[in-house]
Amino acid sequence: MAKFQPPRGTRDFLPEEMVRRQFVFDTLRKVFEKFGYSPLQTPAFESWELLSAKGSGGEAIKEEIYYFRDKSDRELGLRFDLTAPMSRVLANNPELPKPFKRYQMGPVWRYEEVKSGRRYREFWQCDVDVAGTGSMEAEAEVLAIAIAGLEALGFKNVYIKVNNRKVLEGLVEISGAKGGEFLPVCRALDKIEKFGIKKVEEELAEAGLNRKAIKKLLKITDIKGSNKAVLTTLKKELKGVYQDGVEEMERILELTKTYGIEKKIVIDPCLARGLDYYTGPIFEARIKGREDLGTVVGGGRYDKLIQLYGGPITPATGLSFGVERIAEAMKERDMPKTAIKVFVISVNKSVRKETLKIATKLREEGINTGVDLMARSISKQLDFANKAGIPWVLIIGERELKEKKFTLRDMESGKERKVSLQQTLRIFCK
Amino acid sequence: MAKFQPPRGTRDFLPEEMVRRQFVFDTLRKVFEKFGYSPLQTPAFESWELLSAKGSGGEAIKEEIYYFRDKSDRELGLRFDLTAPMSRVLANNPELPKPFKRYQMGPVWRYEEVKSGRRYREFWQCDVDVAGTGSMEAEAEVLAIAIAGLEALGFKNVYIKVNNRKVLEGLVEISGAKGGEFLPVCRALDKIEKFGIKKVEEELAEAGLNRKAIKKLLKITDIKGSNKAVLTTLKKELKGVYQDGVEEMERILELTKTYGIEKKIVIDPCLARGLDYYTGPIFEARIKGREDLGTVVGGGRYDKLIQLYGGPITPATGLSFGVERIAEAMKERDMPKTAIKVFVISVNKSVRKETLKIATKLREEGINTGVDLMARSISKQLDFANKAGIPWVLIIGERELKEKKFTLRDMESGKERKVSLQQTLRIFCK
Repeated sequence: MAKFQPPRGTRDFLPEEMVRRQFVFDTLRKVFEKFGYSPLQTPAFESWELLSAKGSGGEAIKEEIYYFRDKSDRELGLRFDLTAPMSRVLANNPELPKPFKRYQMGPVWRYEEVKSGRRYREFWQCDVDVAGTGSMEAEAEVLAIAIAGLEALGFKNVYIKVNNRKVLEGLVEISGAKGGEFLPVCRALDKIEKFGIKKVEEELAEAGLNRKAIKKLLKITDIKGSNKAVLTTLKKELKGVYQDGVEEMERILELTKTYGIEKKIVIDPCLARGLDYYTGPIFEARIKGREDLGTVVGGGRYDKLIQLYGGPITPATGLSFGVERIAEAMKERDMPKTAIKVFVISVNKSVRKETLKIATKLREEGINTGVDLMARSISKQLDFANKAGIPWVLIIGERELKEKKFTLRDMESGKERKVSLQQTLRIFCK
Repeated sequence: MAKFQPPRGTRDFLPEEMVRRQFVFDTLRKVFEKFGYSPLQTPAFESWELLSAKGSGGEAIKEEIYYFRDKSDRELGLRFDLTAPMSRVLANNPELPKPFKRYQMGPVWRYEEVKSGRRYREFWQCDVDVAGTGSMEAEAEVLAIAIAGLEALGFKNVYIKVNNRKVLEGLVEISGAKGGEFLPVCRALDKIEKFGIKKVEEELAEAGLNRKAIKKLLKITDIKGSNKAVLTTLKKELKGVYQDGVEEMERILELTKTYGIEKKIVIDPCLARGLDYYTGPIFEARIKGREDLGTVVGGGRYDKLIQLYGGPITPATGLSFGVERIAEAMKERDMPKTAIKVFVISVNKSVRKETLKIATKLREEGINTGVDLMARSISKQLDFANKAGIPWVLIIGERELKEKKFTLRDMESGKERKVSLQQTLRIFCK
């Protein structure tokens, strides 16, 4: 029957799913603001020049984005992330007080393969970033935000893998791999968990590393032990030459103690991440026992991106919550199906006016209240409230109005009780 | 210096402006949910087939939207409103309980002329609609929402013009104008206030009305008086033939009394609105004394749109808040520049850890708290807090920690006082 569908790779979010999504967005926003971050909003599309700038997307990204021309033949594209637009904003507005701590929530678009059904071409991102300081205090703060955010969403058992691009660079070099390109090495390493060591070895060879270098690299990145032990080994391996990255991680570990989150940090020399703009610490958060979800928060430091967009040298770090994954994971939870708290039913037409007045009173007290607009029978109204997942129903009849006691029905248990309007308010405001 | 600008007709919203925008979105959302409306989200782009469907955009809309093809040569376009997507959702999901009351907030895109500087190609809409009932109770409810929304935003002195397309159709017919097209007549009438009677006469002539018909039409639509008087005159003019529309307005007036908003309703036979899908009551809200803003909320009934998208016959009505205009109008108001409540300053490095702990405590109490991440001097931190518009600063030094009394500075007045952490909390939670 339906003539039109949402375009391939996109979808609608009906009310029941939106309640869960809004819980995710609202919760994260509250956490971001508690940490002193402010909102930013940028357009859905950007100039092709920006999107294809070296260091961010590059020319090759044309295949992966929605590219189009406007009626004046300007080349445009739907944004593929929120970092490039933020970098542009910083370049355009040098007067913004630093460090600039912003969060941004909104859709981004990528022209991905959608076969699997788990990939979408439109999806939301929730990003927090700090621009204007190279201090590891910024890293510690965004890591604290990652954990506070996930905990506020009800994921108590989380950990964050931390590594550093400078450490990886050092490791690649001491492995004896010179000619190889660094980014393909990172992308290869990133696949260990998902595809196993064989695949990684193949890709490292493709990236230009010889067998000896691959062996050495994979041995060092496989260091196990406590964070302290791992850092000690790395320091030793990287001798006196590439200490920066290790020291940054030591500093981050020290600072996370202040936030009481040091036990949730796992130094992992194998963590590489695929984006090319990272220059220092990188991180990925996971949920213990729900590793199947993959990375739920990821990020890192990118000290050279903002100047690429014409801004002054502006070190920056930040992270992105995988809100689509998180919202998916929350499907398992027993959550309200609607934000509506109560549906006020009028027994017949004669009490319609009084019913509306009671609904207005409930609304004035901040209670989300639905009413029938179609003069339907009680049973049809009950049926509607039930289908919509509304937890309470308040039934208003002539006798009820006279007695000032109404029937309040708990839709889940089916239990009813007689209550005054005052009592109703007390029950709902609990 | 800046290399890249936001694309023509779009803009960035920096934190200070976003605080105001979020206040608008949050406030409206709260009102919508109080009235029992649920959120919906649809993709940014839709199929060209949908956008160009008769009754909504039509083929001609190609010139007014962002049209593009994806890599599989599918014809797409950025959505130009939120009504077409909602109608598609209803057509696609016939199982949704009726009436379907939804709100949606999000950007829409139109390829408008941007010369004047007040028009933008990307702008947000906040819509509320009821689908699945033809009852005027739905109209009364959305009118109550319009007023509750505007009042919650601080606009106390508002009124809503109400008319009915059926009345207009009747008036056009009794004017003796037969051949003329109805929609151009509506669009002409809509211009009386802005361009004056001369321009309207010209356009009515272009729409195919003869001089006599124009005179008669303009005379009737110019009826003045109380709502009751206007309705009586209309009823008389429309004799026994076109009573429907007048009766709908009588019913709306009666129902608005229950909401206590009847005094804010103004029946205006001249109100026409330009969209072609309206089939019954139409309305436009304005702010008294700020008529320069034009319509801040507009809407009407569209009983035939959803079936055009392949759905079953589904009468519907709704309205859209002109949030961009509203946010503009709020610039005059003295509003916070940031959601951050307090900036906690560490006097020197030695108290850094304790400062972060105090910040964490404040955050745990739900207070939006910023800290320095750059080990800057007190004066630089104060300067930052001042520039960012943060209202309070809490200064932590060694003596303060020993005494457990901190210096709290009101950034606007510059006044300082010594307070305990408990006192600080009490001040902020007020």
